[in-house]
Amino acid sequence: MAAVAAKEARDQAFILRETAAGRIVIPANHAHTRLDPIGIGARLRTKINANIGNSSLAGDLTGELRKLETAVHYGADTVMDLSTGPDVDRIRRAIIAHSTVPIGTVPIYEAVCRVESSADLTPELLLEVVEKQARQGVDYMTIHAGILREHLPAATRRLLGIVSRGGSILAAWMNTHRSQNPFYTRFDDLLDICRTHDVTLSLGDGLRPGCLADASDEAQFAELAVLGDLVRRCRTAGVQAMVEGPGHIPLHEIQLNMEKEAELCDDAPFYILGPVVTDCAPGYDHITSAIGAALGAFHGAAMLCYVTPKEHLGLPNARDVRDGVIAYKIAAHAADIAKQVPNARQRDDAIASARARFDWEKQFELALDPDRARELRREALQESAADAAGKPADAECAFDENYCTMCGPKFCSMRISRDLKQSLEAEQSDLGRPDG
Amino acid sequence: MAAVAAKEARDQAFILRETAAGRIVIPANHAHTRLDPIGIGARLRTKINANIGNSSLAGDLTGELRKLETAVHYGADTVMDLSTGPDVDRIRRAIIAHSTVPIGTVPIYEAVCRVESSADLTPELLLEVVEKQARQGVDYMTIHAGILREHLPAATRRLLGIVSRGGSILAAWMNTHRSQNPFYTRFDDLLDICRTHDVTLSLGDGLRPGCLADASDEAQFAELAVLGDLVRRCRTAGVQAMVEGPGHIPLHEIQLNMEKEAELCDDAPFYILGPVVTDCAPGYDHITSAIGAALGAFHGAAMLCYVTPKEHLGLPNARDVRDGVIAYKIAAHAADIAKQVPNARQRDDAIASARARFDWEKQFELALDPDRARELRREALQESAADAAGKPADAECAFDENYCTMCGPKFCSMRISRDLKQSLEAEQSDLGRPDG
Repeated sequence: MAAVAAKEARDQAFILRETAAGRIVIPANHAHTRLDPIGIGARLRTKINANIGNSSLAGDLTGELRKLETAVHYGADTVMDLSTGPDVDRIRRAIIAHSTVPIGTVPIYEAVCRVESSADLTPELLLEVVEKQARQGVDYMTIHAGILREHLPAATRRLLGIVSRGGSILAAWMNTHRSQNPFYTRFDDLLDICRTHDVTLSLGDGLRPGCLADASDEAQFAELAVLGDLVRRCRTAGVQAMVEGPGHIPLHEIQLNMEKEAELCDDAPFYILGPVVTDCAPGYDHITSAIGAALGAFHGAAMLCYVTPKEHLGLPNARDVRDGVIAYKIAAHAADIAKQVPNARQRDDAIASARARFDWEKQFELALDPDRARELRREALQESAADAAGKPADAECAFDENYCTMCGPKFCSMRISRDLKQSLEAEQSDLGRPDG
Repeated sequence: MAAVAAKEARDQAFILRETAAGRIVIPANHAHTRLDPIGIGARLRTKINANIGNSSLAGDLTGELRKLETAVHYGADTVMDLSTGPDVDRIRRAIIAHSTVPIGTVPIYEAVCRVESSADLTPELLLEVVEKQARQGVDYMTIHAGILREHLPAATRRLLGIVSRGGSILAAWMNTHRSQNPFYTRFDDLLDICRTHDVTLSLGDGLRPGCLADASDEAQFAELAVLGDLVRRCRTAGVQAMVEGPGHIPLHEIQLNMEKEAELCDDAPFYILGPVVTDCAPGYDHITSAIGAALGAFHGAAMLCYVTPKEHLGLPNARDVRDGVIAYKIAAHAADIAKQVPNARQRDDAIASARARFDWEKQFELALDPDRARELRREALQESAADAAGKPADAECAFDENYCTMCGPKFCSMRISRDLKQSLEAEQSDLGRPDG
């Protein structure tokens, strides 16, 4: 509690009160020994999550640890291991052992790996996997307990149906067995496990929209209402809970979606995926979704699940993880400035000062991705040097530190502006003299 | 007028009325013979501009034509040639000759290239350059006529002072000569040239904030009020005008900025640069600013000037131009969907349908950047094939078209959801039978 308060520059009483009310969660499994805990809540710094994990078709242990390292290096606040391929158990244990940030999982994935077909899943197997992962030290788990059998007709009428993996597996199971969602019917057993092992529940949105045409529809909001009931059951049972949210939402419906969650789920921290604000930019969904994420956080989301450039196309590699994390650091930070989270703008003012002083090194240090900033500046200087071959001698001064290749010395507004300021200040001090 | 109406799926009377009121501008210099005209206005599809142009330190004619081609290929609606280096005249003529999109310039740049020092600029030289460029076929020109001598003390008190190149040059000139802005004092002469040659004025914001700390300040809004007066003078003189805007603005002040422009400038189309919503991500300013641009367009901006990943670091190359244009196509399109511009969401629904059908080729075709989408999918498939070496034989089915490497077949929500829909539909039709 003290560590969280210090990180947020807030007093402990505030953190304690908000945590007791369920508006802040601190996912921290006691078995996760290397954990450096963080708080997640709308009134705290906006957190970001990076999803890693292999699939049956790509990724191995070394690769996944590399993604973990990349994600944490660039600033992910939590990491979810979504492995669905071989070695899920070994990969998860290694990730927990290495990670200082909270680790989340979606236990149904391991359960599916252990059966021939998803239809063979049983409520007992699902709870067994949850308990095993809880013992291993998983800090929070996505459980799709809110998608109910009665939601399926509305969900299948959609353009893209059910795009959540866990949601679709449970929907198929309910339909095959003509039974209710086992996570819903066995929710009290689930709460017992979570309370025993200090696992935070992340109530999954199995019916999140997968395209703009399906956004804010009947199926989505019917599930959200159930999630609200489950939040209240978690609180009664002494289990921390957050709520997962969309997905694909047009810009003008984001505020509405954030407000609706707060209302239906009694201000439980909202953990949103993007949202993507246009469906037509595969290859750039870190950008389509960073726009939605910034606006979502501004309107109350507490944590943003990143989306990488590979979304809709394939499994992200380490480069995609980096691009996704930085896009989300930007979205989260932009929202924190707008929400006036304590100290949020200090870094911006410091980098602006560094720019005013032409202190390139300081500017790089303060950048969200110093390596990329250095690399692009180096590239610009090299291209400029190559061009200078056929140009007047003053092109050499590209390597002077007092302007950049974008403008060159004669057009450097920063330099002109600095000289102007000095001139006006000198004039002011002249006017101030008795003989002025 | 008819061409513009057809492109926007609006009737001609609407375009005519809005253009007459000055809420839409159609930059079209009669000397720009290859031009395919477009309309710019808050109630039309949001337009994006790409800046190209060399500096004294980098860029040549071939390189600039390549940037023009890249910008238009990926969807820039207008292109500004901001060259400040050698050959400005030859580069501009070549760009106009090649371009089907409106071309904008900032004439003071050429004027500065023609004198030893900016202090040697004269009102006559500035007007001479404007007239020459007007004859050459420039469709719209950025003229910083709103920055006045009385604004300088407030501007120099800022953290970053004046970051507009044109603004800083004029400020230094006013200070050196102890005179008013020559574009302001000679504004009627300027209007004569623009009317004669059908040049649209883009009233530059010489005092746009260059960092969050300077956003929405006294200097910025004092200039905006002057720009409002100039808009009214343009309209009286029969010259089309748009207004340029920030810059660096925190998320929560974007709506305010858009509304203030509409109010002070009588709804003249607002042409904004970004705005960047956090200062601390050099190397990613196409993203920091696409967030602001999407929100700006949603709240009324008519055209978005792109920002590339090289912003604050150096002169963009063709790759940066592509990244900037796509980020801005995303921002503009997201805003158009939110504003419910006619037909805006059709493309999203079509790509979502293609996803539902696993029609990869159609998905690529409809993507804002088909090449990038194809490239990332190919990369994912190759990585998956490499990993498959040490895996069970079913990993080979990565090349099946019916799922992606992100999930693999067992976890493909799209496939599960499709099967579920078929099952529920079959059940419905069974129930509908007399013997059901």
